[in-house]
Amino acid sequence: MAYIGTGVEYALHCLLFLVAPPEQPPSSRDLADIQGVPAAFVAKIFSKLEKAGIVEASGGIRGGYRLARPAKDISVLDVVDAVEGRKALFDCQEVRGRCPLLDDETARLATSGVCGIHAVMLNAQKVMREELARSSLASLSAGVLGRGLPARFAGEVKVWFAERQAAREDARIGGMRARSAVREDD
Amino acid sequence: MAYIGTGVEYALHCLLFLVAPPEQPPSSRDLADIQGVPAAFVAKIFSKLEKAGIVEASGGIRGGYRLARPAKDISVLDVVDAVEGRKALFDCQEVRGRCPLLDDETARLATSGVCGIHAVMLNAQKVMREELARSSLASLSAGVLGRGLPARFAGEVKVWFAERQAAREDARIGGMRARSAVREDD
Repeated sequence: MAYIGTGVEYALHCLLFLVAPPEQPPSSRDLADIQGVPAAFVAKIFSKLEKAGIVEASGGIRGGYRLARPAKDISVLDVVDAVEGRKALFDCQEVRGRCPLLDDETARLATSGVCGIHAVMLNAQKVMREELARSSLASLSAGVLGRGLPARFAGEVKVWFAERQAAREDARIGGMRARSAVREDD
Repeated sequence: MAYIGTGVEYALHCLLFLVAPPEQPPSSRDLADIQGVPAAFVAKIFSKLEKAGIVEASGGIRGGYRLARPAKDISVLDVVDAVEGRKALFDCQEVRGRCPLLDDETARLATSGVCGIHAVMLNAQKVMREELARSSLASLSAGVLGRGLPARFAGEVKVWFAERQAAREDARIGGMRARSAVREDD
């Protein structure tokens, strides 16, 4: 598995649909379905994004997700950390202290401070994280818009989300009527 | 498992012993034992390092490993790539092409060039690799020397390697005598 996994990829693609969001906040299932990615996995990812304060859920029948703060203030790094946890690039095992020839004095000298090898890895991690922090949902979204997709496509996306919303409401009303009918039969 | 695993850590620690090497090239078992790390794993790592042209093996009874080029020309990145393979930080699944609303024209526009999300990950990988390329076995070794370990420690390491070498030769001579004795008994 790659260091930055599919969960981050799905998260970012879904979040881009929330930068200029549909009229009603879409559900995580809507966001999964419009991208052809697994809905159950996306639901789990959105729990993590909500916990990290990247999205917020509005409840109720029209409920769904929206960004919890402006798209320019949500970096790719924020999303990576939310989905993957702050995982280290390298997990130092402190090999330098295991040499059987070390005594108390040399062990103290050999193991003081951060291991030189670990320090190189920490620097690599630092520059990688800085690079991920440099891009935001807003800059990614500008890149997508720069692809010159015709206006009709944005319109089709809007209609698709509205239809999904309407279908959910219909199903809900149908369910209420059915339950009401069952109660009347009692 | 971390992106840069224990194999790289063991490799780097072992390679540091080859920067100012013992008189006779040490075996991978010697290098593992002087650091208290698993010898079988280190043997596999050294096969990879040899294949990548980082170390070379000299055969025979006094055989062992030495660096295949100057320590300043072996970067941490070289060792990471040799041990881990050139593995990607992120494995793009091309999610952008899966939207069911795309037709031929919009699919072409949406999927031309590198995905914006993938591009961010590739940049992060690039800066990470550049940082790993900046450190060499020579610079790491200078850091270890800068720890002020007493000269007696370097002496003890030298003696330890020489004793291991002698023990291997004794075992070999013993084995030859035993085989010779068996032949005489025939």
